[in-house]
Amino acid sequence: MKPCKEEEEAVAAQAASGDGSSSGADPWKECAEVAVQLALRAGQIIKKALTEEKCVSTKTSAADLVTETDHLVEDLIISELRKKFPSHRFIAEESTAAGEKCVLTDSPTWIIDPIDGTCNFVHRFPTVAVSIGFAVNQELEFGVIYHCTEERLYTGRRGQGAFCNEQRLRVSRETDLSKALVLTEIGPKRDPDTLKLFFSNMERLLHAKAHGVRVIGSSTLALCHLASGAADAYYQFGLHCWDLAAATVIIREAGGIVIDTSGGPLDLMSCRVVAAGTREMAMLIAQALQTINYGRDDEK
Amino acid sequence: MKPCKEEEEAVAAQAASGDGSSSGADPWKECAEVAVQLALRAGQIIKKALTEEKCVSTKTSAADLVTETDHLVEDLIISELRKKFPSHRFIAEESTAAGEKCVLTDSPTWIIDPIDGTCNFVHRFPTVAVSIGFAVNQELEFGVIYHCTEERLYTGRRGQGAFCNEQRLRVSRETDLSKALVLTEIGPKRDPDTLKLFFSNMERLLHAKAHGVRVIGSSTLALCHLASGAADAYYQFGLHCWDLAAATVIIREAGGIVIDTSGGPLDLMSCRVVAAGTREMAMLIAQALQTINYGRDDEK
Repeated sequence: MKPCKEEEEAVAAQAASGDGSSSGADPWKECAEVAVQLALRAGQIIKKALTEEKCVSTKTSAADLVTETDHLVEDLIISELRKKFPSHRFIAEESTAAGEKCVLTDSPTWIIDPIDGTCNFVHRFPTVAVSIGFAVNQELEFGVIYHCTEERLYTGRRGQGAFCNEQRLRVSRETDLSKALVLTEIGPKRDPDTLKLFFSNMERLLHAKAHGVRVIGSSTLALCHLASGAADAYYQFGLHCWDLAAATVIIREAGGIVIDTSGGPLDLMSCRVVAAGTREMAMLIAQALQTINYGRDDEK
Repeated sequence: MKPCKEEEEAVAAQAASGDGSSSGADPWKECAEVAVQLALRAGQIIKKALTEEKCVSTKTSAADLVTETDHLVEDLIISELRKKFPSHRFIAEESTAAGEKCVLTDSPTWIIDPIDGTCNFVHRFPTVAVSIGFAVNQELEFGVIYHCTEERLYTGRRGQGAFCNEQRLRVSRETDLSKALVLTEIGPKRDPDTLKLFFSNMERLLHAKAHGVRVIGSSTLALCHLASGAADAYYQFGLHCWDLAAATVIIREAGGIVIDTSGGPLDLMSCRVVAAGTREMAMLIAQALQTINYGRDDEK
């Protein structure tokens, strides 16, 4: 792909920012760099674990598994970040499952999913990723997602664009649902009423003649596909803030839209999302969906 | 992974076969080598096309697209094979769509899908593959599938094992449906009755507490995941012999089972399949499914 005007602007902005950590012009530069290094280190651990036998336990259902590696990776990321940034706060999947509160304050906060796609990971299905997001004053500053088996590093920083490895990401500009490839996930609840709503939502999109619906087993990587223009929309009920935080920055910086399933602004704690390349597409998806109630991350 | 007994045997068998084309001990060796070369060449064309704008037309529904690249790749593969093997027959997706008969005789027959995952291809969703299978006396001799965006070449030859790049493939040994990751595809028909059956089948597997169901948009690559042990089962109604031919050899050579959805032997022309790592798993899936009638490839 040819470099375009925005790319040149992004490069200029990066050059102008210099060493933000000392000048104060780019206060989260060091944090973003550390996030990349930790995502790569975590990815190596996950990749190695994929070739070994694993000890698996279930969290809330057959679909919601947790492995030793989840804990190992989360502990590594948080302990390294605590050493470097002792005043920062953390929201992370396994810590929350172990009882820690999941509340987003104005403090600099890291929002971490050590292995997104744990069920895939357990089966060695190679769609798994590390996701590290970072928010300040409840605003997402950057996101890093590493698809370790394919060695694809997705990054996005507020105002500085989104990239996969060194390539600038751009969302699809599609506005017509009948030409859309749509991604979703089944979600952890498998009771008959929830499944009925899940299938009904998928059916509505297929009746609207969407080209296809895909279910790949990793919300964050599905959202990365959206950011890269390989899909036109994504929706899900039952995902968590750690599935969304990093990907939201990446999609927005790739020119996309991330909103609530009601059509209103995204609420990171609401366990539901619609994302799309265009606002028109996002609204068409939101209008087609029936709500599946998964509660809120900050009320669990 | 360490080499195992079977690998040593496979290597010994290959070494013993020598130049099968001249000795007659391995009469399809040259064919298999040509298939690999053509799959790699086709993959380069597809990869290049993924970075360019494409002219798209629809075949029978929004989900069933065809591109210039489909035709280009199919024409390349068939014309090269015709030059080298003028007496051989061909069954290929785009030729069949254009009206050629789809009948498997005892003659050496190439069964080709130039781009499996055309809908993905149109959207630049990177799950697309070239699939080349080869049958003699109606028995599948070898299969080559190239996942070009990830540069993964899957090969299987009857009696000689299955490989991804240089790594031996082995299916999962799981027999318990409640521990299974299951793959499927929606299929091209999108009328309400067909969709109802599709969702009902998926629901039955989730009620049986399968860990998850994935829909990645490429039958052949889903079947390759099964061959590599990354999933425990696959089922589909509405796929074609060119989606199945190459993958069937690869799965069987990886130790897996490919049968009809009735639980009986596979019928390559029946537009339906269950594949699994173990016979127990395959039968559990077959028993859970309601039939979706897609007719037969050889009666169209």
